[in-house]
Amino acid sequence: MTTEATTLKGQTLDRPALDSMLRRRMFYTPSFEIYGGVGGLYDYGPPGCGLQANIVDIWRKHFVLEEDMLELDCSVLTPHEVLKTSGHVDKFADWMCKDPKNGEILRADHFVEEILENRLKGDKEARGQVIEQKEEDPKKKKRKAKGAIEVVKLDDAVIQEYEEILAKIDNYNGEELGELIVKYEMKNPATGVQPSPPVAFNLMFQTSIGPSSNLPGYLRPETAQGQFLNFSKLLEFNQQQMPFASASIGRSYRNEISPRAGLLRVREFLMAEIEHYVDPNGGKKHPRFEEVKDIELVLLNKETQLSGKTDVEKVAIGQAVANGTVDNETLGYFLARIHLFLKKIGVDQSKVRFRQHMANEMAHYACDCWDAELFTSYGWVECVGCADRSAYDLTVHAKKTNAPLIVRKRLPEPIKVEEWEVDLDRKKFGPHFKKNGKTVEAAILTTTQQQREAFAKALESVGSLALDVPGVGDGKVVVPKELVTVEKRTRTVHTREFTPNVIEPSFGIGRILYSLVEHCYWSRGSEGGDEARGVLSFPPTVAPTKVLIVPLSSNEQFKPFCYKLSQKLRKMGISNRIDDSSATIGRRYSRNDELGTPLGITVDFQTVKDQSITLRDRDSTKQVRADEDTIIAAIQSMVDGNKTWQDVEAELPIFEGQEAEVPIRQ
Amino acid sequence: MTTEATTLKGQTLDRPALDSMLRRRMFYTPSFEIYGGVGGLYDYGPPGCGLQANIVDIWRKHFVLEEDMLELDCSVLTPHEVLKTSGHVDKFADWMCKDPKNGEILRADHFVEEILENRLKGDKEARGQVIEQKEEDPKKKKRKAKGAIEVVKLDDAVIQEYEEILAKIDNYNGEELGELIVKYEMKNPATGVQPSPPVAFNLMFQTSIGPSSNLPGYLRPETAQGQFLNFSKLLEFNQQQMPFASASIGRSYRNEISPRAGLLRVREFLMAEIEHYVDPNGGKKHPRFEEVKDIELVLLNKETQLSGKTDVEKVAIGQAVANGTVDNETLGYFLARIHLFLKKIGVDQSKVRFRQHMANEMAHYACDCWDAELFTSYGWVECVGCADRSAYDLTVHAKKTNAPLIVRKRLPEPIKVEEWEVDLDRKKFGPHFKKNGKTVEAAILTTTQQQREAFAKALESVGSLALDVPGVGDGKVVVPKELVTVEKRTRTVHTREFTPNVIEPSFGIGRILYSLVEHCYWSRGSEGGDEARGVLSFPPTVAPTKVLIVPLSSNEQFKPFCYKLSQKLRKMGISNRIDDSSATIGRRYSRNDELGTPLGITVDFQTVKDQSITLRDRDSTKQVRADEDTIIAAIQSMVDGNKTWQDVEAELPIFEGQEAEVPIRQ
Repeated sequence: MTTEATTLKGQTLDRPALDSMLRRRMFYTPSFEIYGGVGGLYDYGPPGCGLQANIVDIWRKHFVLEEDMLELDCSVLTPHEVLKTSGHVDKFADWMCKDPKNGEILRADHFVEEILENRLKGDKEARGQVIEQKEEDPKKKKRKAKGAIEVVKLDDAVIQEYEEILAKIDNYNGEELGELIVKYEMKNPATGVQPSPPVAFNLMFQTSIGPSSNLPGYLRPETAQGQFLNFSKLLEFNQQQMPFASASIGRSYRNEISPRAGLLRVREFLMAEIEHYVDPNGGKKHPRFEEVKDIELVLLNKETQLSGKTDVEKVAIGQAVANGTVDNETLGYFLARIHLFLKKIGVDQSKVRFRQHMANEMAHYACDCWDAELFTSYGWVECVGCADRSAYDLTVHAKKTNAPLIVRKRLPEPIKVEEWEVDLDRKKFGPHFKKNGKTVEAAILTTTQQQREAFAKALESVGSLALDVPGVGDGKVVVPKELVTVEKRTRTVHTREFTPNVIEPSFGIGRILYSLVEHCYWSRGSEGGDEARGVLSFPPTVAPTKVLIVPLSSNEQFKPFCYKLSQKLRKMGISNRIDDSSATIGRRYSRNDELGTPLGITVDFQTVKDQSITLRDRDSTKQVRADEDTIIAAIQSMVDGNKTWQDVEAELPIFEGQEAEVPIRQ
Repeated sequence: MTTEATTLKGQTLDRPALDSMLRRRMFYTPSFEIYGGVGGLYDYGPPGCGLQANIVDIWRKHFVLEEDMLELDCSVLTPHEVLKTSGHVDKFADWMCKDPKNGEILRADHFVEEILENRLKGDKEARGQVIEQKEEDPKKKKRKAKGAIEVVKLDDAVIQEYEEILAKIDNYNGEELGELIVKYEMKNPATGVQPSPPVAFNLMFQTSIGPSSNLPGYLRPETAQGQFLNFSKLLEFNQQQMPFASASIGRSYRNEISPRAGLLRVREFLMAEIEHYVDPNGGKKHPRFEEVKDIELVLLNKETQLSGKTDVEKVAIGQAVANGTVDNETLGYFLARIHLFLKKIGVDQSKVRFRQHMANEMAHYACDCWDAELFTSYGWVECVGCADRSAYDLTVHAKKTNAPLIVRKRLPEPIKVEEWEVDLDRKKFGPHFKKNGKTVEAAILTTTQQQREAFAKALESVGSLALDVPGVGDGKVVVPKELVTVEKRTRTVHTREFTPNVIEPSFGIGRILYSLVEHCYWSRGSEGGDEARGVLSFPPTVAPTKVLIVPLSSNEQFKPFCYKLSQKLRKMGISNRIDDSSATIGRRYSRNDELGTPLGITVDFQTVKDQSITLRDRDSTKQVRADEDTIIAAIQSMVDGNKTWQDVEAELPIFEGQEAEVPIRQ
């Protein structure tokens, strides 16, 4: 597998050169830059904006339209209670320490990890061992560089302790991390001072809603919760039919402790999320799985990772589901659909893998999860998550609000159910328990079948039942048999009620966009060979601008042709720009290669004579020449993705005209 | 002009019926409803989402693509300093009082206004005058109803005081409003208690960015600021050409004190904003004004409003600019373009007016402003603002950051400029002023031409110049002529530098969407006449779903036809839904009339025989019948806006088949 990032043409990727080009061409730019900027916030300029819009448009067609998903647009502002229930208030946090001397903020788990790793390295050096050259994890590079390694030999028992701690580093809570810091006398290498005990830093942006009540709220960390809360209405809208999916495209927020890596770790980002609701019974089949079962995916499963390796296997998704690598059809279906989407937008197929989460890294709601990762100069980047959230979210929200977030499904045949039922003698029950009557009643009625069976036995054997009712007396309540009957009865049931499971493909659009840019980037020598020129070979469907129109010179005769062409393309919804600046044609094309514009039209003296125009391909720089209608038809078919340049080149006469360095008449 | 809201067919608009239909069909729904909801926050369901996407898509084509605007996508999170400079921290606020008895929050200006208006009414009643029946302003209705009117005769002098206060009510700050409340002993009618002194309640949602620095920030109240901060980069991207426009579609936030009126006053909303940058010299001409000059707009100018009237005039925009009603061509151009946009999406042309802002209601940055207002059951609703923000924003940001937010324009001919210039004798200047040297120097060098002329005279007549330098000594500084020379000199200038003015059309998408829904709504009696049925007559270009496909019955033969048709339309990007539920055809169509689906295809036994299908028009319920390709071509042309149903009906054979009440075979 690739270990160093390369361009589309296999050249070593020069990230500073690419970054500089992206800023120069205004793909994106730090927000508020004239005020000094704010970490993790970026603005998309015109080409970035166009690229993003096209990716989102293809996404919407590929998923929402193709699969008849129910699209929602929900509020970003979210009240505390919702995110408390979902678990985000308690769990969407990192543990943070502060160095009391220099005020530096440290992520507690990273800090402990770094100190122990360095001590182990120091020990190895002290023992004269060569330090193992692991494959560098770019995420850890910077952190590692910070800590100085002291060459000190450790006791064997200490080494074992350290190694055990490191193996389960993700499992410690803040208090435990604090204890480790004290116990092992860990100090910030920068100051020699022990950091303060860890405190939880929640990654949600907090605000308050309204003027008076000061209702606390957050900016949503994902679009999912808004979709879950609407489940019942969506089911109703879908005329009670299952399975179905909702989808949402919108911004989410994450107050990163230290944003970095450009567009990859930001505080405000566009997500596209699907929540597919499926009956948990019957193996989570998908009606269209047959269509995708032969598609081959590159998989990195959890067993491989747990054995310390990163070997991938290329396997048909049908087979992966059949042999249990991927848990179920619906999850597998979406992995295949994600694969097809990434391919459609132009992601390099040699730089994609699907990595399964290991148990300890799974989000608090997930029961199985695969990430589509794209390889970039920052290493493997998680761009799409595809999680089986089980019934977690719908269950917790239903429990909190009593809203029936369930499906009622008519059974093909009515069935008979034997159940323990409870009857209370209300005349005696109320007077017996007085003010606690309601509480005790509720406690009895919410008991499980198992408990009720025990009650029946107790009533028979000791003449009363006993149960825990917190808040009533000492919390133990005894109900004599005069007040209650517990019996096993048979009833006929026509419908089955269940809480659907949720399969959630979740796309980070900014990460996909940035990775795609790296995958489409390459550089070519200029004609003179003195300077490398950047090219972004976006597929025509994705490119922000489809056509560059250049007059051969600033001759006034060319202007009306350019304008008319531009308007015609515009009317067809094909974005284009006229560049009638005084630069040479070569320079103008080169500027647009950097913008990723796939096609160029030159208007020249021949055009004035016979209306013919030339069409240039960005990638090969080859040109064809034909009349306007023919060229426009060719453009349309490439922009729609129905033809490639190779098709067009085979059909139309090649033009061997002047490209680069014709001096312009001013 | 209309004073009561009506449906598309002129029926009295029954808002509760419409609201209930919109919720039932999930156009929108209160966010977090199962948690009790949060005022001013709504989720769009599938049809609302589709409608919004189509409006935005048409907007993007009409403005961004058609006019080659530079689209940006900027951060919502905005640091304090940016919004401090723009004036929002200080001025984007309402004054708020609290009733100490019942905790009620009162908007101070509304409270004072209400009390005084009621006292004046009480006085009129006491004098036996009939209370004037003004045209009801729906915004004030609720407030007025709250205060009880006491019949008390007032002194003539007091009446005059009250009337003067009311005339300038928008000009008082919080302290002044507080003084008025005390001076005139104003009490909350609900409790008889005087409210607490007003405090400013800023309408921005506040948060803090990052873990350590606690950088204070806000959710942006408009997309404009992000665009302004990128001005220099945009100008560079546009190859220094002026005029040009940037545009942005995104969410903005406003922490309303009391959100109400459904989608019209919300806390989180989608905006589409254009910032058009124009040279302030030369009358702010627009190169394409000629194309729109004959378009007639309904205008309500400020003079008419100041005279207490609301009479509108229908006038060609060319004439309105020529006679000065509309200040300049660029502003006029955009008013006309806004008019065309609203027409394109289906806004009722009898329910639009352009209302000019009066001086005292203008936003803090604006120097002229017109609102496109749409008439609804809530009265006239401001849906699009078109403001001339002058050079305000670019100037304040440039001043704060020293970023050169300016345009350098090469002059056609170099010009000679005569200017007073200042030379300092630095050898003597420094030692003379010692530590104050820099401050005094800066003060001298930033003087105006007029001041310099006076300096020159003073140096000649009294041998020194005097100027104010706050912070140096007593603030008065005298500079003897040995240290300074002030002379008039001529220099040649090749470029002109200027700060562009900004014309800003700003669209509230949610308000437009809601108003459009009211304009497209009507009801028709059912066949039996027993029940009115709602219809949303969206133009096919705007309708969320374009085609409903219904099999005549649940006969299995029909299924493959429906599925094939659906896939075919989908591939063409035409959204459609199959309704194969067991309801009657009439009920299924009726459900889709409520969703605003303009076209319906029925698959019946004839289809199975000869592949022909029928196409139904939502508005007339008429049907045509033809083969699949012909029907699909007709659909495409209507969805693209190239043909109307009348065209199609004239071309294809009418089908007089069964509509409504065919019982379904199960």
